[in-house]
Amino acid sequence: MRPVTEFSDAELTALKEELTLRYEEAKAANLQLNMARGKPSAAQLDLSMELLTFPKSWTLSDGTDARNYGILDGIPECRNLFGELLGIRPEQIIIGGNASLNVMFDTMAFLNMFGTGGEKPWSFCKYEGHPVKFLCPVPGYDRHFTICEELGIEMIPVPLLADGPDMEIVTKLVKEDADIKGIWCVPLHANPQGTCYSDRVVSLLASMETAAPDFRIFWDNAYGVHHIYEEVPLMDILEACKNAGHPDRAYYFFSTSKITFPGAGIALTASSPANIAEIKKHMAAQTIGHDKLNQLRHVQFFQTPERIRQHMQKLADILRPKFDMVLDTLEAELGGSALASWSHPKGGYFVSLDTLPGCAKRTVALAKEAGVTLTGAGATYPYGQDPNDSNIRIAPSYPTPGELEQAVQILVLCIKIAGIDKLLHDRKN
Amino acid sequence: MRPVTEFSDAELTALKEELTLRYEEAKAANLQLNMARGKPSAAQLDLSMELLTFPKSWTLSDGTDARNYGILDGIPECRNLFGELLGIRPEQIIIGGNASLNVMFDTMAFLNMFGTGGEKPWSFCKYEGHPVKFLCPVPGYDRHFTICEELGIEMIPVPLLADGPDMEIVTKLVKEDADIKGIWCVPLHANPQGTCYSDRVVSLLASMETAAPDFRIFWDNAYGVHHIYEEVPLMDILEACKNAGHPDRAYYFFSTSKITFPGAGIALTASSPANIAEIKKHMAAQTIGHDKLNQLRHVQFFQTPERIRQHMQKLADILRPKFDMVLDTLEAELGGSALASWSHPKGGYFVSLDTLPGCAKRTVALAKEAGVTLTGAGATYPYGQDPNDSNIRIAPSYPTPGELEQAVQILVLCIKIAGIDKLLHDRKN
Repeated sequence: MRPVTEFSDAELTALKEELTLRYEEAKAANLQLNMARGKPSAAQLDLSMELLTFPKSWTLSDGTDARNYGILDGIPECRNLFGELLGIRPEQIIIGGNASLNVMFDTMAFLNMFGTGGEKPWSFCKYEGHPVKFLCPVPGYDRHFTICEELGIEMIPVPLLADGPDMEIVTKLVKEDADIKGIWCVPLHANPQGTCYSDRVVSLLASMETAAPDFRIFWDNAYGVHHIYEEVPLMDILEACKNAGHPDRAYYFFSTSKITFPGAGIALTASSPANIAEIKKHMAAQTIGHDKLNQLRHVQFFQTPERIRQHMQKLADILRPKFDMVLDTLEAELGGSALASWSHPKGGYFVSLDTLPGCAKRTVALAKEAGVTLTGAGATYPYGQDPNDSNIRIAPSYPTPGELEQAVQILVLCIKIAGIDKLLHDRKN
Repeated sequence: MRPVTEFSDAELTALKEELTLRYEEAKAANLQLNMARGKPSAAQLDLSMELLTFPKSWTLSDGTDARNYGILDGIPECRNLFGELLGIRPEQIIIGGNASLNVMFDTMAFLNMFGTGGEKPWSFCKYEGHPVKFLCPVPGYDRHFTICEELGIEMIPVPLLADGPDMEIVTKLVKEDADIKGIWCVPLHANPQGTCYSDRVVSLLASMETAAPDFRIFWDNAYGVHHIYEEVPLMDILEACKNAGHPDRAYYFFSTSKITFPGAGIALTASSPANIAEIKKHMAAQTIGHDKLNQLRHVQFFQTPERIRQHMQKLADILRPKFDMVLDTLEAELGGSALASWSHPKGGYFVSLDTLPGCAKRTVALAKEAGVTLTGAGATYPYGQDPNDSNIRIAPSYPTPGELEQAVQILVLCIKIAGIDKLLHDRKN
């Protein structure tokens, strides 16, 4: 398709009529398709069914009966397995409950209630009229933003560039403003663009000067082993922080939510020895320990990091054709049209798409009306406010291939209709 | 044994010598026995092994795939089962993670961070120099006290009488002091005395006038179906609060920790519709939902409330001989001696024993030296401070019957030695 900007008004109007006809046909089909959330498909989940046959034994290497109380930071077998997978020392890992979101919320809540490193509780800053602020690379993950919003932490959007957050802006802000106490990062196959952080960005995040002594990086490596097209390396943030003289700067999060069963997996946090000791002290008041049988279930099912990687390859084999279909369709239908641009992820769960400015909400609404549920427009921005109203997150994983094909065709149709309407409207004014 | 107070000095000294000899023999045996925590025994855990063969299907009645994301407040099947068991409407129940301790901590943390019913966050009270206070019936559960201590909530001990907290003291305190914003209650087979709350006490707790509008009862019904000798009824606290015009006063907690596998079970909270809505709002920022497969595992294993009760009977059959042994030995060895008094629980996990004043720490230390680990003396009081230094919590569940017999004999020996030493010392001064 040639750029719509080169179309005459008459051509645009004619095209719009044709598209509207096809849109009405789509609506009449009464479809119910969902591309809203990054949910694994049933086919992916089926690959983990054997997990449910474990644990087959429950006496741990140290003699502990995993069926009973105990072990605050997770069974050694589990910390070893994921430590080896992620290149983190097991003693710097705490296995959490069933989801990293919960671990992230609790970590933020602990900072809110207790502070860290001898600094005052972050809630105290709010009480004193200087609420804590967090940097949020955008577009980003809506549930990160919800944690901040719920805890009264002000969010400052910063652009996410091709190799990570815009470090020129980030380094300047954190140096100047002591209320800025952290940044959200999804360093590999970021939600939603698929961005992977370069070594340069990781080094800068670890070494940059911050006005707040208790500045913290929330390193949500949700897609750390979720490569689809290409394995992408990632610099070790904990090591980088340590080497830069800021050993306590980063909390690392990871989970098996998109490895085995979302909500029935295990999550972990990793950090410096001082941070881990601090978290364990708070945790000791909160729990006797998380679900050791589920930890053991995962250990006995996977056995080795290598087998986790093989499992991820099988999942990638299911996801790849779906991503291919989305990307190929976008290229075939919108390539060169100037109506949209989109990301080309190497892994993760999403494609990030930008419509013409002011067209995202309309596009999502049109799709909804035609039976295709997308992530709400604006959800990828703090407070749900996309200043350009242009970003749409596409989640290709959950629908079947057949459903996905229908859904993407409808999405494309809606992008075109919304975009052409906008153009015609702009030309009139 | 006749009262030691009637013994002459010479008699006491002779008795002491004999006991010390036996104590040295016990020490020489190098035992390693543990009566410290309320842990189920391996024999109890063995009764739940079939649980691990579930779930055998994962499509919920509403069509949800329980293997995937979703359902914030727990699968309906699970809320129905435990709602029926406990006489609580399913829509007033939220299924939590693997332990009620975590749910209790989080509930208290939410109050701390967000407040409730439009009142200010409890952490703000602390910043304003008026820290929130909680009433703690004593002796009580150490982990309740740890939650308060960690969150900076001041604890006021109130006596636990035969049918519940001393309501004369409680009603007076909560009426006068607006900083008192709650009370911990273990209403059935209380930890450690086995006390069961009478209808009179429950009614008073529900109806009493409190200076704090956001006064809350933390109703930890940990032993709600854990009857050993006798089924004890309990008045419905949520209904009582509602009827008394304080619908939002109570949070109800329960878990399967001592029903199936501690740490690999499920927990729940129940409260008024307004409180549940408030908690769900906070929870929505914390999690997408807890482990649905483990919820389903429990539902498919138990199927009906009746089968849970039958399961509890089997567990009671294992626990009863242990409680018999402890109570019989205490009676045989210490009955009439005036050296100790103890509770006669009808269920739960503990026997509460009081030594002569000033003898608990010494007794626990003596036992430790002879290889018997008991709950630390003082642990049953806020801040670990038993003003009389007399209370010891006995947990008979974990050791095998053979180990338990040895452990109780040593405990009795230590109680006698510490008591007689104290008497002799007092007579000298």
